[in-house]
Amino acid sequence: MSYDTADAVDPARGTGQPSGLLAAVDLGGTKIAGGLVSADGALLHQVRLTTPATGTEKELAAAVDAVLDLLAEHPRWADVRAVGVGSAGPVDIEAGTVSPVNIPAWRGYPLRAQVAEHPAVAGLPVVLGGDAVAMAAAEHWQGAARPYRNALCLVVSTGVGAGLIIDGRLHTGRTGNAGHLGHITVDHTGRPCPCGSRGCLEGLASGTAIARTAAEAGWRSPDGDTSAGAVAAAAAAGDPLALDAFDRAARALAAGIAATATLVEIDAAVVGGGVAGAGEVLFAPLRRHFAAYATLPFAAHTVILPARLGTDAGLVGAAALAREALPDGAAPAP
Amino acid sequence: MSYDTADAVDPARGTGQPSGLLAAVDLGGTKIAGGLVSADGALLHQVRLTTPATGTEKELAAAVDAVLDLLAEHPRWADVRAVGVGSAGPVDIEAGTVSPVNIPAWRGYPLRAQVAEHPAVAGLPVVLGGDAVAMAAAEHWQGAARPYRNALCLVVSTGVGAGLIIDGRLHTGRTGNAGHLGHITVDHTGRPCPCGSRGCLEGLASGTAIARTAAEAGWRSPDGDTSAGAVAAAAAAGDPLALDAFDRAARALAAGIAATATLVEIDAAVVGGGVAGAGEVLFAPLRRHFAAYATLPFAAHTVILPARLGTDAGLVGAAALAREALPDGAAPAP
Repeated sequence: MSYDTADAVDPARGTGQPSGLLAAVDLGGTKIAGGLVSADGALLHQVRLTTPATGTEKELAAAVDAVLDLLAEHPRWADVRAVGVGSAGPVDIEAGTVSPVNIPAWRGYPLRAQVAEHPAVAGLPVVLGGDAVAMAAAEHWQGAARPYRNALCLVVSTGVGAGLIIDGRLHTGRTGNAGHLGHITVDHTGRPCPCGSRGCLEGLASGTAIARTAAEAGWRSPDGDTSAGAVAAAAAAGDPLALDAFDRAARALAAGIAATATLVEIDAAVVGGGVAGAGEVLFAPLRRHFAAYATLPFAAHTVILPARLGTDAGLVGAAALAREALPDGAAPAP
Repeated sequence: MSYDTADAVDPARGTGQPSGLLAAVDLGGTKIAGGLVSADGALLHQVRLTTPATGTEKELAAAVDAVLDLLAEHPRWADVRAVGVGSAGPVDIEAGTVSPVNIPAWRGYPLRAQVAEHPAVAGLPVVLGGDAVAMAAAEHWQGAARPYRNALCLVVSTGVGAGLIIDGRLHTGRTGNAGHLGHITVDHTGRPCPCGSRGCLEGLASGTAIARTAAEAGWRSPDGDTSAGAVAAAAAAGDPLALDAFDRAARALAAGIAATATLVEIDAAVVGGGVAGAGEVLFAPLRRHFAAYATLPFAAHTVILPARLGTDAGLVGAAALAREALPDGAAPAP
């Protein structure tokens, strides 16, 4: 287990601004991060531990407690008004449990209760959500989705996740899994997906899928790196097989975003995650295919934008979840 | 132009129940219906004119006015508290306009303003919505979706339409077109759709598609009737080509319903319209394919039910839209 901490200047300190804080926990397959976030969305402080992903239920629980212990050492912990927890999914926010695909020891694990029972947290509201939903909340609060009352926010990396903003509010769904764009079917007679369904968007558009498509088409990396990032670099340099791999992924993504726009009406789709780092290699074909699928006027107007929050999105998103627990979803007051 | 009227017993009359009424207009390509609906959803009175679908803008407007004139002759018109208008789409509820595909003279026609300016209506709130969204409102208010806070209500007939109930409320989308299930792509490399997109659900699952699939497979009607209804009758009698046509439609519908369940989390999908009249010929393969596509637990629990409201759904739905205009969406009081 390793950890590192980072501090940023607190813009509220000494300015007379509200000094209530939000605490955030972002639990993933590789790290457990904790943070303190100001009422206006600034990440003031963060800590990070390696996730004992193959550990026992108790080892995992101990790592979460250790992150909370570290956070609680911060001199401003007493200003925390609510705690948000974003977790790798699936989650069940009705039950307060998580079952992260990459953390086998936790199946239906009562993470919300564990956090709520931590001595430093006791008495504070604790809000649990899925990590993609949390990132959507972050983009709506502080990022590219901020101007929009209806938006889909995607994370395209090894998988494809997303969250929905409807009528200006985060739409979690009853169990917290709404926005599961990676597992909608865009090719109903297509290949079986590990989820049990068929033709899922994730199997066509994730970084994993891009790397596989390129390899299957005969693309060979000059330096042995066969990741989606290497395919992106080759595509940017004009390699036709690499360009085609991105085009195919963009096409499936476009069909899924168009389906969302057609089904719920959205004004923007915000695309983040490692694969979005490919920039125009992804966004140019994505916009082109989107225009071909989203033909009805109420869907066609949807804009496609890159996400604005980077590596902080997980913690800012968890804080955005915590914000929901405060009266009227308002910024916390001191 | 022809009309007929029908009266039902008013259950509120003389019982001391609230006697405020909702007026409803249901505008389609073949008829314009008007109705008076009680606070508890009973259709008390209705009138109907043939739509002059190929007429001029003015002839169409005159037909709508004539329906309102007829309704306003009813002795209880003075009890009307709000007017709901369900129209063939697309609609734009932000602008108050309709552009029904089958009524070419109306493109961006200001139907809401016309109704609001009718002398008998002036001063009453007028709510416009798409016909499929209105039918979803009806199923949620008085039909099969009533027990559910999150539901998709479909109309499968010559086309495929739908409306969404999210968190206990009708989700119209900003322009009133949310729930446009017929034009989500379930086969992203599939056949072009008249809408300009590709692999749309409607092109695979509508009554029109079922009749075409059967004909293309070589099914021949014994009596020359090649409609989806005739295919349904043949399927019910065990004809393998007819059964296969329904199976293919059910498969595409299942993929679309599963995509909706995965994207927004719904507890029920309510299926109505002429094709749903085929009963188990449609519902048995629909439930089987749905189980195959909706594998994630939060989507898999969704129940698929037949719609409960029949031919009255359009008017009851328009009244359900009107209800939204009253304080707290509450039933009207006298």
